[in-house]
Parts: sequence; C-alpha cells; structure tokens
Amino acid sequence: MKSPDQVCHPGDKTVVQPHKALLLKRLNRVAGQVKGISKMIEEDRYCVDIVTQVSAVKSALDEVVLRLLEDHVSGCVQDAIQHGGGEKAISELIQVTRKFIRS
Amino acid sequence: MKSPDQVCHPGDKTVVQPHKALLLKRLNRVAGQVKGISKMIEEDRYCVDIVTQVSAVKSALDEVVLRLLEDHVSGCVQDAIQHGGGEKAISELIQVTRKFIRS
Amino acid sequence: MKSPDQVCHPGDKTVVQPHKALLLKRLNRVAGQVKGISKMIEEDRYCVDIVTQVSAVKSALDEVVLRLLEDHVSGCVQDAIQHGGGEKAISELIQVTRKFIRS
Amino acid sequence: MKSPDQVCHPGDKTVVQPHKALLLKRLNRVAGQVKGISKMIEEDRYCVDIVTQVSAVKSALDEVVLRLLEDHVSGCVQDAIQHGGGEKAISELIQVTRKFIRS
Repeated sequence: MKSPDQVCHPGDKTVVQPHKALLLKRLNRVAGQVKGISKMIEEDRYCVDIVTQVSAVKSALDEVVLRLLEDHVSGCVQDAIQHGGGEKAISELIQVTRKFIRS
Repeated sequence: MKSPDQVCHPGDKTVVQPHKALLLKRLNRVAGQVKGISKMIEEDRYCVDIVTQVSAVKSALDEVVLRLLEDHVSGCVQDAIQHGGGEKAISELIQVTRKFIRS
Repeated sequence: MKSPDQVCHPGDKTVVQPHKALLLKRLNRVAGQVKGISKMIEEDRYCVDIVTQVSAVKSALDEVVLRLLEDHVSGCVQDAIQHGGGEKAISELIQVTRKFIRS
Repeated sequence: MKSPDQVCHPGDKTVVQPHKALLLKRLNRVAGQVKGISKMIEEDRYCVDIVTQVSAVKSALDEVVLRLLEDHVSGCVQDAIQHGGGEKAISELIQVTRKFIRS
C-alpha cells in the first residue's frame, strides 16, 4: 500500500505528517519509557539496567527521526526539487542530519 | 564539594543514586520535551524543527547516562574493585557502554 | 559558486563525485590519522589520548559521509525524483542513513 | 584465560596496552578499509555503497575504543582507585566517554 502523501505548505511552514498516528503512538510509548526510568531511579534500581533502558529510548527516538526524515524527503524536499528551492531544501536536510548524528 | 557517595548493594542489586534529585529533574524535563514533540506533530509543525527537538532530547538523555555512568564507576565499580568482583563489574560496564553508543 | 553537479548513472550504478578531490584529501588525512593512532599504541601512549584521537577520526568520517549524502541527494536522488524511481531512491537513502547513525 | 595486565605508568603517562597486537591488527585493517574507500571514490562507485563502507569503518573504530576503554578501566583506573587518584581518573574516563559518544 502506498503511504499517504505528506502535505507540505512551505509558505507557513506547516506540514501534515502522513504517519501522524504512528508517530504519536511511538512518542507516547517513549513518554511512558521515560516515566519508567524515573520510577527505576526512585526505586533505587541497578544503574546498568537504567542505562540499558535509556539506550532503548534513544533507539526509539532514532526510529521516530528516520520516519520523519523519510516523509520529509518524500514530501517537502521532493516538492522543492519539483517546484523550486531544491538546493536550499537539500542543504537544510543535511544540516539537520548533522545535528541529529551529533546527538 | 565532594559529591555524595553512591550506595551500592550488590546483593539485591539496588543502588541509591547519589544524584537522584538531579536525575529525576532532568528526566522530568525530558518527559516535558517528549510531550512537546507530540504537540508539534499534532499542530503540523515543520518536520525539520521536530527533528531538531528530538536531537535535543537525545543529547539530554546522553547527559543522564554520563551522570549515571560516572556515579556507577565511582560507586559499584569502585566497590567491586576494592572488595572483589572488579573484573566482572568492568566487563559489565563495557557491555552497557557498547549498548549505549550503539543507541 | 554553485557546486559542480554529481553525474549519476543509475544503469551501471557509477557516480562521479562532484567533490572527488575534497573527499580524497579528507580520506587521505583520515588514513594518516589512523596510522598515527597505531604509532601511539606502539609508543605506549596514554589510552585516554588515543581514545581522543579515535573520536577525532570518527568525526572526520562523519563529515565525509555528510558530504557524500548531500551530493547523493542533489544528484542521484534528485535525478530519480525527476526522472522516475524517486520512491525507491528515498527509501534507500533512509536505509543507509539508519546504518550510518547506528555506526 | 585471564587477559594480560595493562601496565600503567601515571608518572610519565605511558601505558603498555595489554592487547597491543590485537589493536594494531584492527587499526591496520581500518587503514586498509579507508584506502579501499578512496579507491571506490576514484572508481566512481555508487555513493550509497561508499557510505555503507564508511559506516563499517566507524563500527570498527568503536570496537577499538571499547577495547581501549576496558583495558583502561582494568589498568589505569583500577590502579588509581587502589593507590590514589581514583576520583580524578573516573572523572577523566567520563570526559573521554562524552567526547567519544559525541563523535
């Protein structure tokens, strides 16, 4: 099944995420994991187990970002390439990828 | 000022974090940031700005982990080196560091 | 100054890198740094200083990859978006980005 | 089999790596891989394949660092914990870990 299209409005910089429900579900799970980590610390759980949980959250956030990036390239970047502003959109994509890999 | 000591009970694997309040405060802020990212997606905010926010959360989680690791080495690992089990504790430290850098 | 165009031949999957000289220069420097790290180990240099050097090499490799990715999106991906195969090219871009952030 | 001990001389900051041969072998392989990546660029190979190779080099460097860190903790840090300077050694360990995860 073709994924729904991203609706990109460069004018006011709003973007309707095509996988909005999926992203919100994943972020909701991440929020629950973060709460769980706080609880582990309150309950004096073993540090190594806590670090393992934080690593899992980071991996989950990576998946959120990869989903966002794929839809961003399929949507906004593709639009810009086809209708003008492609060079700027690509440069911005690389800047945010740099920021992301440094995080 | 000397930081408070980590109290490590290897028997039942409970650990009283010496920076418990700081860690909980940071995780609370992270939870707020994650909620903010969900709101950005609901409000159709620009994808690049969302990715930037997720990168900030990942960096914040790194700081949580580095705090945990420093206290873990000063506490549990140091204890094990001084009272037995050092080799096992160090091997476990490297395993969790590997997991963390892969996340 | 506009950067030179990437020449992408999807048929035989050859790509003339527009920043070939720059990339080769950077990789040459990386090769020198790796040799330097071997020398540090041979000369029994302090481990922390060696780890610092390896971290510098990893950052240098990140810059090589970001350059490659930017030219890849401006070249092959843009070509595919304009002349067919865009969806496949974008999916492949995200796959390699995932591999890269996991490394 | 117990791994050979790291010989740590804090005075002149020299350290005899217990896995010297292994580390040199791995770095030698990394040097070969970097040379191979230069060759790929010279031969106009597909960018995605090049990025995949660079990712492999980064993972190989991670393994070098994890080996160095494990021996550093077993050697220099353990020495410092047992004979004075433990707090400083642990703080330095976390600093270099931060630098490393940011790379």
